[in-house]
Amino acid sequence: MPRYALRVEYDGAPFSGWQRQADRPSVQGALEAALARLEADVPSVAAAGRTDAGVHALGQVAQCDLARDWDPFRLSEALNYHLKPAPVAITAAARVADEWHARFSAVERRYLYRIVVRRAPQTHLAGLVWQLRQPLDAAAMQQAAAHLVGHHDFTTFRSSMCQAKSPLKTLDAAAVTASETDHGTEIRLTFRARSFLHNQVRSFVGTLERVGTGAWPPDAVATALAARDRAACGPVAPPHGLYLTGVGYPQDPFA
Amino acid sequence: MPRYALRVEYDGAPFSGWQRQADRPSVQGALEAALARLEADVPSVAAAGRTDAGVHALGQVAQCDLARDWDPFRLSEALNYHLKPAPVAITAAARVADEWHARFSAVERRYLYRIVVRRAPQTHLAGLVWQLRQPLDAAAMQQAAAHLVGHHDFTTFRSSMCQAKSPLKTLDAAAVTASETDHGTEIRLTFRARSFLHNQVRSFVGTLERVGTGAWPPDAVATALAARDRAACGPVAPPHGLYLTGVGYPQDPFA
Repeated sequence: MPRYALRVEYDGAPFSGWQRQADRPSVQGALEAALARLEADVPSVAAAGRTDAGVHALGQVAQCDLARDWDPFRLSEALNYHLKPAPVAITAAARVADEWHARFSAVERRYLYRIVVRRAPQTHLAGLVWQLRQPLDAAAMQQAAAHLVGHHDFTTFRSSMCQAKSPLKTLDAAAVTASETDHGTEIRLTFRARSFLHNQVRSFVGTLERVGTGAWPPDAVATALAARDRAACGPVAPPHGLYLTGVGYPQDPFA
Repeated sequence: MPRYALRVEYDGAPFSGWQRQADRPSVQGALEAALARLEADVPSVAAAGRTDAGVHALGQVAQCDLARDWDPFRLSEALNYHLKPAPVAITAAARVADEWHARFSAVERRYLYRIVVRRAPQTHLAGLVWQLRQPLDAAAMQQAAAHLVGHHDFTTFRSSMCQAKSPLKTLDAAAVTASETDHGTEIRLTFRARSFLHNQVRSFVGTLERVGTGAWPPDAVATALAARDRAACGPVAPPHGLYLTGVGYPQDPFA
């Protein structure tokens, strides 16, 4: 069966996460239902990152195996037609080698976390950002984030439900920027690694928020990391500010 | 009664427009309902621009008269509390002179129109942009928009329901920019004038879209303007791409 890579964008709000569940809407379930409109007996799809409930994607990558030889562009158009009205869109499709795997071939995941700081509630961005009402010091957050970059035991920033065999990971980049927008001051935190532990980005963000408010000095993040203790983590940031922005492969399947 | 100026942001989707109507939700109605939670017998509020059904605002300006002497910040906080869960937010409040009027004192209105060009449907931006699937030539649109700037008879770009006494208006600025975003190519059209005719911006945008696709040459916009004939206008662009971004006064009440 020919294998296809799909780049997938979604609003996480109505979903219990990427992964198919018996009685609750999931992104995987929505995509598999659309595929079932194209062909019978389509095998389960797999994705690079199994995002949690409420987490968004701008560049999730999934794979599917189909019986027919589809033109990739026509495949993406057909899937978008059948995905409606779910807030899930296929933004690119490509034929890939049979041994290529959306998850196991990936060598990089990129995440964005959006915080907007202002007093008034959000209107257009409701559900798309973590709204905070207290000013944040982005420079202090950047200084603190730098402590996280590198090869570390990230036990502090790992959910107790994490199924990874090892808490050792390499964080390749962490950046914090602030800009004034129509909707308030937006703080954007970006993270890049080969792979992440469960809840790692939201644990980072919740901890960096403590630094941004001044509750913690930037160095406290280094101390929390060194503690290798979940109890040393700040509060976990909510899912609706988080976006899986992209997945890297040795060769970009969509190039 | 002390008078207050309110800067108001809203998502136009659930509303039949700014103006209060008997049986349908309106932004004015939502704001007046919130004010009624603060004081009894609050007079009707007025706004700088009576936006149509589905049109958004980032910087609408309204006025209200209250019996009590409110601290402006506390007034905005109280209104935001009572406005929930409607997608309406007070982003600034100020005490103004009794003779100041949100509509009649205004000397400038600014509008933004957002178009996103890509094949796949929108997810996070659904209802917030006009999605088009065909590439647009932003440079040609800018060239065409330049024909609209200045003092003209804008009969071509005026709704048949427009109640303004004269079709003569001065458009002070029109700009078209394109940028690549996470969600596709975004074309932003901005317009600035002392005041606008009914449906003028959406008529401009629908006509400029014809130029962007190449269906019309840029000069056709000058011809359409000179025709002073509603039939010479392109199709009116949909409301959900339009934002009232700001209102200018001789002195900024929120400064």
